[in-house]
Amino acid sequence: MQSRTRIWTEVDYERDGKQVDWLHLPHSVTRSAYGTIAIPVAVVKNGEGPTALFTAGNHGDEYEGQVAICNLIRELRAETIRGRVIMIPALNLPAALAGTRVSPIDGGNLNRSFPGSPDGTVTQQIAHYVDSVLFPMADLFHDFHSGGGSLAYLPFASTHEGPDKEVNARGMAALRNFAAPVSLHWRQGADPRYSPGAAMKRGVAALGGEFGGGGSLNRAGLAFAEEGLIRHLRFLGILPGGAPEPRPTRMMEVPDQACFVYAPDAGVFEPATEIGDGVRKGDLCGRVHFVDDPARPPVSVFFKRDGIVVCQRHPARCERGDCVAHLALDVD
Amino acid sequence: MQSRTRIWTEVDYERDGKQVDWLHLPHSVTRSAYGTIAIPVAVVKNGEGPTALFTAGNHGDEYEGQVAICNLIRELRAETIRGRVIMIPALNLPAALAGTRVSPIDGGNLNRSFPGSPDGTVTQQIAHYVDSVLFPMADLFHDFHSGGGSLAYLPFASTHEGPDKEVNARGMAALRNFAAPVSLHWRQGADPRYSPGAAMKRGVAALGGEFGGGGSLNRAGLAFAEEGLIRHLRFLGILPGGAPEPRPTRMMEVPDQACFVYAPDAGVFEPATEIGDGVRKGDLCGRVHFVDDPARPPVSVFFKRDGIVVCQRHPARCERGDCVAHLALDVD
Amino acid sequence: MQSRTRIWTEVDYERDGKQVDWLHLPHSVTRSAYGTIAIPVAVVKNGEGPTALFTAGNHGDEYEGQVAICNLIRELRAETIRGRVIMIPALNLPAALAGTRVSPIDGGNLNRSFPGSPDGTVTQQIAHYVDSVLFPMADLFHDFHSGGGSLAYLPFASTHEGPDKEVNARGMAALRNFAAPVSLHWRQGADPRYSPGAAMKRGVAALGGEFGGGGSLNRAGLAFAEEGLIRHLRFLGILPGGAPEPRPTRMMEVPDQACFVYAPDAGVFEPATEIGDGVRKGDLCGRVHFVDDPARPPVSVFFKRDGIVVCQRHPARCERGDCVAHLALDVD
Amino acid sequence: MQSRTRIWTEVDYERDGKQVDWLHLPHSVTRSAYGTIAIPVAVVKNGEGPTALFTAGNHGDEYEGQVAICNLIRELRAETIRGRVIMIPALNLPAALAGTRVSPIDGGNLNRSFPGSPDGTVTQQIAHYVDSVLFPMADLFHDFHSGGGSLAYLPFASTHEGPDKEVNARGMAALRNFAAPVSLHWRQGADPRYSPGAAMKRGVAALGGEFGGGGSLNRAGLAFAEEGLIRHLRFLGILPGGAPEPRPTRMMEVPDQACFVYAPDAGVFEPATEIGDGVRKGDLCGRVHFVDDPARPPVSVFFKRDGIVVCQRHPARCERGDCVAHLALDVD
Amino acid sequence: MQSRTRIWTEVDYERDGKQVDWLHLPHSVTRSAYGTIAIPVAVVKNGEGPTALFTAGNHGDEYEGQVAICNLIRELRAETIRGRVIMIPALNLPAALAGTRVSPIDGGNLNRSFPGSPDGTVTQQIAHYVDSVLFPMADLFHDFHSGGGSLAYLPFASTHEGPDKEVNARGMAALRNFAAPVSLHWRQGADPRYSPGAAMKRGVAALGGEFGGGGSLNRAGLAFAEEGLIRHLRFLGILPGGAPEPRPTRMMEVPDQACFVYAPDAGVFEPATEIGDGVRKGDLCGRVHFVDDPARPPVSVFFKRDGIVVCQRHPARCERGDCVAHLALDVD
Amino acid sequence: MQSRTRIWTEVDYERDGKQVDWLHLPHSVTRSAYGTIAIPVAVVKNGEGPTALFTAGNHGDEYEGQVAICNLIRELRAETIRGRVIMIPALNLPAALAGTRVSPIDGGNLNRSFPGSPDGTVTQQIAHYVDSVLFPMADLFHDFHSGGGSLAYLPFASTHEGPDKEVNARGMAALRNFAAPVSLHWRQGADPRYSPGAAMKRGVAALGGEFGGGGSLNRAGLAFAEEGLIRHLRFLGILPGGAPEPRPTRMMEVPDQACFVYAPDAGVFEPATEIGDGVRKGDLCGRVHFVDDPARPPVSVFFKRDGIVVCQRHPARCERGDCVAHLALDVD
Repeated sequence: MQSRTRIWTEVDYERDGKQVDWLHLPHSVTRSAYGTIAIPVAVVKNGEGPTALFTAGNHGDEYEGQVAICNLIRELRAETIRGRVIMIPALNLPAALAGTRVSPIDGGNLNRSFPGSPDGTVTQQIAHYVDSVLFPMADLFHDFHSGGGSLAYLPFASTHEGPDKEVNARGMAALRNFAAPVSLHWRQGADPRYSPGAAMKRGVAALGGEFGGGGSLNRAGLAFAEEGLIRHLRFLGILPGGAPEPRPTRMMEVPDQACFVYAPDAGVFEPATEIGDGVRKGDLCGRVHFVDDPARPPVSVFFKRDGIVVCQRHPARCERGDCVAHLALDVD
Repeated sequence: MQSRTRIWTEVDYERDGKQVDWLHLPHSVTRSAYGTIAIPVAVVKNGEGPTALFTAGNHGDEYEGQVAICNLIRELRAETIRGRVIMIPALNLPAALAGTRVSPIDGGNLNRSFPGSPDGTVTQQIAHYVDSVLFPMADLFHDFHSGGGSLAYLPFASTHEGPDKEVNARGMAALRNFAAPVSLHWRQGADPRYSPGAAMKRGVAALGGEFGGGGSLNRAGLAFAEEGLIRHLRFLGILPGGAPEPRPTRMMEVPDQACFVYAPDAGVFEPATEIGDGVRKGDLCGRVHFVDDPARPPVSVFFKRDGIVVCQRHPARCERGDCVAHLALDVD
Repeated sequence: MQSRTRIWTEVDYERDGKQVDWLHLPHSVTRSAYGTIAIPVAVVKNGEGPTALFTAGNHGDEYEGQVAICNLIRELRAETIRGRVIMIPALNLPAALAGTRVSPIDGGNLNRSFPGSPDGTVTQQIAHYVDSVLFPMADLFHDFHSGGGSLAYLPFASTHEGPDKEVNARGMAALRNFAAPVSLHWRQGADPRYSPGAAMKRGVAALGGEFGGGGSLNRAGLAFAEEGLIRHLRFLGILPGGAPEPRPTRMMEVPDQACFVYAPDAGVFEPATEIGDGVRKGDLCGRVHFVDDPARPPVSVFFKRDGIVVCQRHPARCERGDCVAHLALDVD
Repeated sequence: MQSRTRIWTEVDYERDGKQVDWLHLPHSVTRSAYGTIAIPVAVVKNGEGPTALFTAGNHGDEYEGQVAICNLIRELRAETIRGRVIMIPALNLPAALAGTRVSPIDGGNLNRSFPGSPDGTVTQQIAHYVDSVLFPMADLFHDFHSGGGSLAYLPFASTHEGPDKEVNARGMAALRNFAAPVSLHWRQGADPRYSPGAAMKRGVAALGGEFGGGGSLNRAGLAFAEEGLIRHLRFLGILPGGAPEPRPTRMMEVPDQACFVYAPDAGVFEPATEIGDGVRKGDLCGRVHFVDDPARPPVSVFFKRDGIVVCQRHPARCERGDCVAHLALDVD
Repeated sequence: MQSRTRIWTEVDYERDGKQVDWLHLPHSVTRSAYGTIAIPVAVVKNGEGPTALFTAGNHGDEYEGQVAICNLIRELRAETIRGRVIMIPALNLPAALAGTRVSPIDGGNLNRSFPGSPDGTVTQQIAHYVDSVLFPMADLFHDFHSGGGSLAYLPFASTHEGPDKEVNARGMAALRNFAAPVSLHWRQGADPRYSPGAAMKRGVAALGGEFGGGGSLNRAGLAFAEEGLIRHLRFLGILPGGAPEPRPTRMMEVPDQACFVYAPDAGVFEPATEIGDGVRKGDLCGRVHFVDDPARPPVSVFFKRDGIVVCQRHPARCERGDCVAHLALDVD
Repeated sequence: MQSRTRIWTEVDYERDGKQVDWLHLPHSVTRSAYGTIAIPVAVVKNGEGPTALFTAGNHGDEYEGQVAICNLIRELRAETIRGRVIMIPALNLPAALAGTRVSPIDGGNLNRSFPGSPDGTVTQQIAHYVDSVLFPMADLFHDFHSGGGSLAYLPFASTHEGPDKEVNARGMAALRNFAAPVSLHWRQGADPRYSPGAAMKRGVAALGGEFGGGGSLNRAGLAFAEEGLIRHLRFLGILPGGAPEPRPTRMMEVPDQACFVYAPDAGVFEPATEIGDGVRKGDLCGRVHFVDDPARPPVSVFFKRDGIVVCQRHPARCERGDCVAHLALDVD
């Protein structure tokens, strides 16, 4: 028997108009015996039509989507739309308030927790609600990410390649319409522990993307996130005016695990490249320095294939095994 | 009675040759009753001549100087110099290993702890050693900083304006010789709790500077830190070849407290500018968003004078009272 | 295959006489490789007869039952009884010693952990022992609670409405015999994650109740808990003298979720009522004040139905989503 | 040389009108290199006249004064007053936001930290600002306390007996005018580490008082705190209408250390009295129960003199050495 | 459907030669979004032949095996062997680096976590990898333990008695060949949550043993661990020279739970015996002293059967329920 | 002005008879606003005569003295003595209850905190009480130590060489009378931050000693501590029977800093010697192994002079700079 979510809300997803309220996740702890975690949610609805589901704050230290969705919540008016827009700007609320990737309550990484569980940890309960309550309502799902505190990224929107070609095709169409400066196709398959993979298992076209990184707010990434949200709504017919003009995007892909480079020791990592650089197999990726033992020579690490550097570790201090860079390839 | 440092070392500052060893700061705790904190130090000496003192890792999350000094320690050969170079790449070692601004042991901010105390906290003992043992040996002191994890900076070298004009003049000459792309003059007086202010009280020409920020390693900042270290040694006559060619630098200053802007509430800060932008008094500096309460409008904050944005808060999440930006002015 | 509890004890539940000993829950950790958590248990038995199971300290910050059961353990003599009394005054021992609702070891809320698991966390193992070893022995189960550190309560004994009418009837009879000044009937169904719900699934008549709150010890609640324990034993025939004289009790119920009011923001909550007050739908429940930003007006929250205030948040500081009050209704 | 406070504010204490802003205490830490702690302050001024200084949140878990002062800040209008009112509702802001007695930053108890230090810990810097900047402006100082999370109190206003009779007399006059239901005279001398003692050393009439306790908000205590604030302003002539009508108050005193009773062991404390009870020397004060070892008899503790119970420990769990009760005496 | 391990490595278990590299366990957290935990692994292989699997650091505070295996990794040359040796010196790497029994990441006790789970906690993922990837390759498995920080041990090698007689016999033969000064036979059955029990379920002959304890490195234990490793390799024919000369060992067993003694209260435990002593049922095992309450007499605890003391609690401070000693018996 | 201790007690040091009570150190914190730390103290007095002061638990993880003094407290009868014995078995009570060297409250190492301060941290207040209240009463002071959790020791009693020859002579006489199997003379001067150094500044003959180590309870060390306490009392004439028979002791000394060896890197330290071994300058002291990187060769460290190994680091894991061994020399 599949038990049901314990999360409740005063929001009525079927009511016309704009509602901005909270999802209440019961969390009975010493400081609050009948406490709930209040996750903000907004629904704007007008009559029949498709449903768009926009989320951010899946990881708490990724900010462009949080701000873009907050702005959209305040600006969108029910009168001007047809259909429904569900928006959650701070999905893993405890992490968003702490500015951390994982939940400070249970250490959970929400984007490794799908499809979740109604009786699991706080993070698993959030995943379960999205998966069991929201995905079934949605026609398009876009979960906005960035590199978070630990990774700097060349900003892009993305889609994953899942097992269902029809779902893949709808996702790719949405990605091309969104038309970020860079669009990335993750070839390694849609891991169902991630929100897009979970949505695609439910048949929902799903996008992601890294709109910045380093724990900062990327103003360019925010700008095209906001623009892209409007393009989504026009593309779906929720906002009037018809599908947006096509716009070019640089299409890239991450073909395999050899794109990733890991720190060979703990210390201070000095990168040998900048984000956006093209590299060849065997090129120096960077060096780890030992500042507590300066007579010890630094240790070098090299790229394992050709590609474009789209991601680098942001904090200079690293532990052995940290990803320090990854590559992508242009799709011709 | 002024008690003496409890820090000991097997390094002999008067011995010719290269020594790379550790300062031992006794730290008797549960995990090690007779423990010491082993702070790396290097001395390269050859005969008589001036003494340069280079430090980094005063704040543990500032990396360009840590790497530049480690590289110099390994590369510098006693045979090629005249005089002495003392180098400490990770001055607040516990903070450097933790990648934090302040010490994980005592919470101490080393750059607010001068002149320190021989019986105080670990951080105060480090300050006291530098102040009472190393400053008296030095002709030039350069402490390499960056914005750390919380601030992004337009990289520059800097000097403070202290009460002694002759010391100020020597500092300004060293700054011009160092010739970073940007040089900054802190007009607010040399606070003696900071390492440069403490050195200047001892009559030592003292430089600082922010060579990057955000908790990352700035490759351009590292490059001119390394170049500048060599320029210092040639300028002092420690390395042969005579004083370096003069080189232009953009000279800036921070005239007053009105240059600084603070967050008006806790939330996600969206900056309205990029580092390097020129702004006018009353221009929007940024907005604080409330992602847990998206119906609440963001709060704006404005610049209080004209200037160039040389510093911005790096992490998007802020608390009320955090510095979110500061300005500098070109010195014509 | 259902694995068995790993908890062992030198207590023999079938032996006549009084035994006061410990349940040993193996807990292999750094500070004690072969450690056990020693949960106190007492068994008083004399010949054949019914079994009463009394527990407290399910939540560690709820004290009336802990003291009442300790007193009963010391005072009860095997010679005077017929049947068996099993008493555990500090069921979630780590929480009881820490004075916290949830376990300091695993964060577990024991009263959301039934039926537990023999290989789960410490808290889940305790739940599993009670459910699989003790409930099958019991004719009556009474788990003594209070509001804990976060809630102040009008003291009462209570029973839940479960799916089995015969079990419900036995519970209601025990509740009326217990005859607390107030008796409360939870209408929302017996959640099997709670101890009474789990006991009722096993066919055991089960009572609960809130005998005080605020993290303090309520002397009146303690007095009627102690009196009620004796009434239970006489009612079951374990103590001689026959069933106690009937005694009036104010019978109340909590009909629905609209009885509960939640904090609309984080801050200092000023209640508008006292416990015991009667209120109408729309009455002010209280206001949240922002002491870090005193120019910001407080936010009000209102009752959503008529009722009697039986519970209020005890600590003034609250987070958004905390329960700040709940209502009950008099029956007939 | 006495160094000066590093706390700055945009408030101008000499400007007419109402200003609600923040004191900025520089706090340079990893999460914010140029951070400040923003402590709210309000000044309402109109022309010449006396200055009243009202503070709360000296201990963060004491709430009546925090709310009363916030309300006064919003309600007071400069046009209606003569003189000046300075109000700080959350003096130890980090403790107030955490709901703790002591600062979560440095563990400091602000009310044991006067006269403070401009270069000390955060808590010491707050004390120093109040002592060196605000006390010299004030004619009357009232610091609102309660029992906090650990003590329940019979609410009262209070004054301390200091070495200066004239200052004592002004304090006693203000106490009688404030006219709380109970007024308490601390006979043990004004400890200058406490805010009232420090103010009295500066010649300022100073009141305190415990307006509730247990970490809750006492509605009766709040009501007479609010009333008393208005009575203060009329008494000083800051608000018009002349001195308030005299009103009776029950005057009590705490004559000596024998009034205090301490827990003889760690465990669950069961009090034998209620607040307000009269007791005789040798009466039972309470018992400590050992819920982890229920066969061990509880340990009793007794009153050491006659008196009225005005204070009891609120949380039932105690450690050996905790104050579990204290007495006061009626002054006839 | 059984999902597969997410741990990857560049080691090829089928390749001839010596490889020393890392297992990468993906661990996506705030400080490293694409981080991995890098667990060292070495494989030495030459042609066909049996496979020996040697592990240590299953508990991080047990050191003899960690050092013995590191030494073997550096010394073993592929040319001299026939078959394969797989060595992991720090299996629960996070615990080994922290010097703790359980993982500092998830609190997991690896030796209670078999067979593990590919999607579980970090510790469960390590167990799953060993169980699902390594055990199927192995002919002999030896996991080196000691008493860790909390227990002092008479050093020995050991085997467990499992349900499969043939596997038991191979284990006993390996134990006799290993020929530690003491060999111990755990009679209570091979718990499959422990690594040897899990290996035996897979049909792998499995040894354990306690080579020291107290959190220290036992030089004698290290010596016979190193010797025993070579004896294993010769016994299996992986190293040339034929099976080693038989050597006497003192064979002991732990027959039942009555061998174990537990602390009767929290305090300072004073043992009445030394490790190696023979005791009789009823002999004093030790006393718990109450140093915070010295008037309270110490509490004594006694042995429950005859035997040899092979294990004692190492730290003097104990909690009620800690194992303070256990016995073994000579097998004649 | 020297302020006075805030510590109070109901013990009367001038009263005849046996008193076992507590010193109350006021500690006002969130969990107890009027809390005190209750440090046990015992005074046994009969008429006029000398005063012996015995303390243990100065470091909380050192146990022989704690138990020896508790036993003496219970066994000593006032009728049998002449003079006074003051005994504190757990001087740094918070550390003793936590089993840590330093205080869990303030991190203070009591034996680096003399002469302390009446308004300082908890640890400093304890030091100040001993120094200002107890030392002035004492004729002989013995503070019992061991190696604690981090160091294993060859047990001995010891005295320090201070500047006052007469005090030194009395200490040496007491050391010879105490007649431990080994007696050690610290030549480096009596550091007044240590309890013996502080006592000697007050003119009190003062002994120390390491009666065991490793965080365990050394039964042999306990035995001669208990015997020595009686010898002290007979030597002083407090117990009857005259001065004890002289008894041989092995007299050793620690002449200089070259006796100490420090870890050259972080890792697992494998000692090359056992405690009690004689070594020569240049002999191998041990090796640091890198279990996370087993291909990296271990780093060796050597003795810097001849001597006897009297102390070794107990836990195998070390950080660079930890003391791993120290030597002493026989005094012929």
